Amino acid sequence: MAGQLPKSPLAPAAFPALPRIAGMRISCIQAGYKYKDRNDLLLVVFDREVSAAGVMTRSATASDEVEWCRKCLERENPTARAMVVSAGNSNAFTGKRGKAALDLLTGSIANALTIPRETIFPSATGVIGEPLPAEKAVNVLNDAIASLGSATLKEAALAITTTDTFPKGAGSQTEIVGTPVSISGIAKGSGMIAPDMATMLAYIYTDANIAPAALQTLVKDAADQSFNRITVDSDTSTSDTFLLFATGHAPHEEITDPADARLTAFRTALNEVAIDLAKQIVCDGEGAQKFISVRVNGASTDLSAHKIALSIANSPLVKTAIAGGDANWGRVVMAVGKAGEPADRDRMTIRFGETLVAAEGAAVDDYDETPVAAHLAGQKIDLAVDVGVGDGQAEVWTCDLTHGYISINADYRS
Amino acid sequence: MAGQLPKSPLAPAAFPALPRIAGMRISCIQAGYKYKDRNDLLLVVFDREVSAAGVMTRSATASDEVEWCRKCLERENPTARAMVVSAGNSNAFTGKRGKAALDLLTGSIANALTIPRETIFPSATGVIGEPLPAEKAVNVLNDAIASLGSATLKEAALAITTTDTFPKGAGSQTEIVGTPVSISGIAKGSGMIAPDMATMLAYIYTDANIAPAALQTLVKDAADQSFNRITVDSDTSTSDTFLLFATGHAPHEEITDPADARLTAFRTALNEVAIDLAKQIVCDGEGAQKFISVRVNGASTDLSAHKIALSIANSPLVKTAIAGGDANWGRVVMAVGKAGEPADRDRMTIRFGETLVAAEGAAVDDYDETPVAAHLAGQKIDLAVDVGVGDGQAEVWTCDLTHGYISINADYRS
Repeated sequence: MAGQLPKSPLAPAAFPALPRIAGMRISCIQAGYKYKDRNDLLLVVFDREVSAAGVMTRSATASDEVEWCRKCLERENPTARAMVVSAGNSNAFTGKRGKAALDLLTGSIANALTIPRETIFPSATGVIGEPLPAEKAVNVLNDAIASLGSATLKEAALAITTTDTFPKGAGSQTEIVGTPVSISGIAKGSGMIAPDMATMLAYIYTDANIAPAALQTLVKDAADQSFNRITVDSDTSTSDTFLLFATGHAPHEEITDPADARLTAFRTALNEVAIDLAKQIVCDGEGAQKFISVRVNGASTDLSAHKIALSIANSPLVKTAIAGGDANWGRVVMAVGKAGEPADRDRMTIRFGETLVAAEGAAVDDYDETPVAAHLAGQKIDLAVDVGVGDGQAEVWTCDLTHGYISINADYRS
Repeated sequence: MAGQLPKSPLAPAAFPALPRIAGMRISCIQAGYKYKDRNDLLLVVFDREVSAAGVMTRSATASDEVEWCRKCLERENPTARAMVVSAGNSNAFTGKRGKAALDLLTGSIANALTIPRETIFPSATGVIGEPLPAEKAVNVLNDAIASLGSATLKEAALAITTTDTFPKGAGSQTEIVGTPVSISGIAKGSGMIAPDMATMLAYIYTDANIAPAALQTLVKDAADQSFNRITVDSDTSTSDTFLLFATGHAPHEEITDPADARLTAFRTALNEVAIDLAKQIVCDGEGAQKFISVRVNGASTDLSAHKIALSIANSPLVKTAIAGGDANWGRVVMAVGKAGEPADRDRMTIRFGETLVAAEGAAVDDYDETPVAAHLAGQKIDLAVDVGVGDGQAEVWTCDLTHGYISINADYRS
């Protein structure tokens, strides 16, 4: 972690106990990219080729790591033998030197482990524009491999942080046709967080036995339910990566159809883990003091509701009002209006917490700001809008916009 | 003006000397909507029906004032006899009571001046969601009418301010077929400023003799050249209004075709006045310490260049980096990438001021941050990006994002 920043007031009390996933070994080590006195290189090795799936940023200036993973995932029935994360340097927009660095790192891992390069999933996160000093990783690679199996997922979650103020993990135990199945995930992210393009870095592991094509459908659905519903600052990273690996160690028959009814419990558990990680990213939003849930109903479609919800969640004026504890619902009206989506001004309703503050195009007649002010004084803010034109609905999560965000981003080169 | 805020460091040295426009009289008075010890009601009366044109916010939650003006402009050959601006209350999202307030105000003016209501252009600006106390305006209406002709455009520019820290005006003297023609404009705006939907409040007056339909084309073009190229915080007001009135007192033949070659000088002068006003709004952006020009070349189309330029200009991470004097061009790469427009990462170039910092997908080889840091220490920042795919180009203007923005918007109900 950046180390200079105080822990977010929205951080969970503790890192959760995560189920162990059979078929994978973890190593965390200090390559010395940027940070002193902490691990900054995560290596995960699978004991055989395991099902891999993922969604990556749609940024037109994506990093070579993102493009590499995308190519790995474009193979028929993509599988993984290893994944590696470098923290402190995103290796994005680094031209030929960045490509050479990535080649050096993945080539060294492939040689050392005698595995195909296209089964290695690399990520990097941190400053944009400086080539990754991959030789630092190569120098410690033998030590990393020797210590495989020594690190926990909590240590892995710590090793991948940058401006994060706490490590992020979530897990679940579920079943597939009566066979116990485990899911464990980690994530990092704090700023440059915007939806609709996957997420920051998030990795979920399971011992379920699911074919790659089915896994890809599951990961896409999970992203839409979780990471694509959060925003911190409307800025989208060049490195966003969300990967899901299924080791297949759970002794149930392989599932190949993503719509298979036997996946119902697993799908729910997976989505819950992804949502938990996504909400933790919002809770660690740069400068965040409050977690804000924005619910939109009555839109023309679910997609329209999502766009309106994001327009509210990305509005600097809404986010600063909530930071100031100001029940300034007029700014919510503004944010609905600018979304470019159908809305009936004269049938709109707005709630803060349980309190109806506006209806039929105006403040409610007996509007009492007291309960709203009490709600806004808390850390968890619920904002609900009905735009009065249809049945579309959506919910997104964000945080407030505070002096902390300015301090972090005007001073820290991330 | 709000009165609590220090004057922007980017404010012009003085309000400019504006040409008088024959055919209009101005009155400024204190209705007492919200502010103490300052005028908050502007009344402009034209001596006959003059050509009127304008563009309004596309917000789905626009105020009744905006809808009223839009209806006025939808008439065939729209004309104006009067315009009125209330400052401190936008009357937006105020339901039936807001409509009644607007009816009372315009009805009272129509009766007092014996003019058709559809020739009165009303605006209101300030807090959203509280019905305009129009009776306060009605109480002082006779005094306002009695003092018509007593106020200057500078006083008018002051009377319409809210969180503005300085009054905004711009003027020009030009000619149409050799006849001298004057243009004078005023504007207000500081926060809730975003492009593509007209602007905040801006009014330009001219004595040129131009038919309404031609004037409408001119005002649309001027908006595209000016107010649609600025952003402070990506938030779009419910009250944005840009109106252009031509009194026709200049003794030249009426011009009815907007493409008439005799309008060349006038069109240029009008656009310059609009651009001047738009840049002044950016210079008064809430918390602004630096004026930022974002130029994009090499895009697939001009529209694509405009979208990429706005993606950069609206990025909180770019704006905070510039606030901190940090030459963090990696964030510019990120903002290009998230724009959703064609860009060739490996052919992109980025300049801060005169200095090329990145080319061919990476930092330049001999990159020296010294001249860039010197440029960023100044108040006027030039950022130029070539995205390497075509001939499209655009330029937009914005300001940095500072602690001042948070302080103003977390504490002040605007």
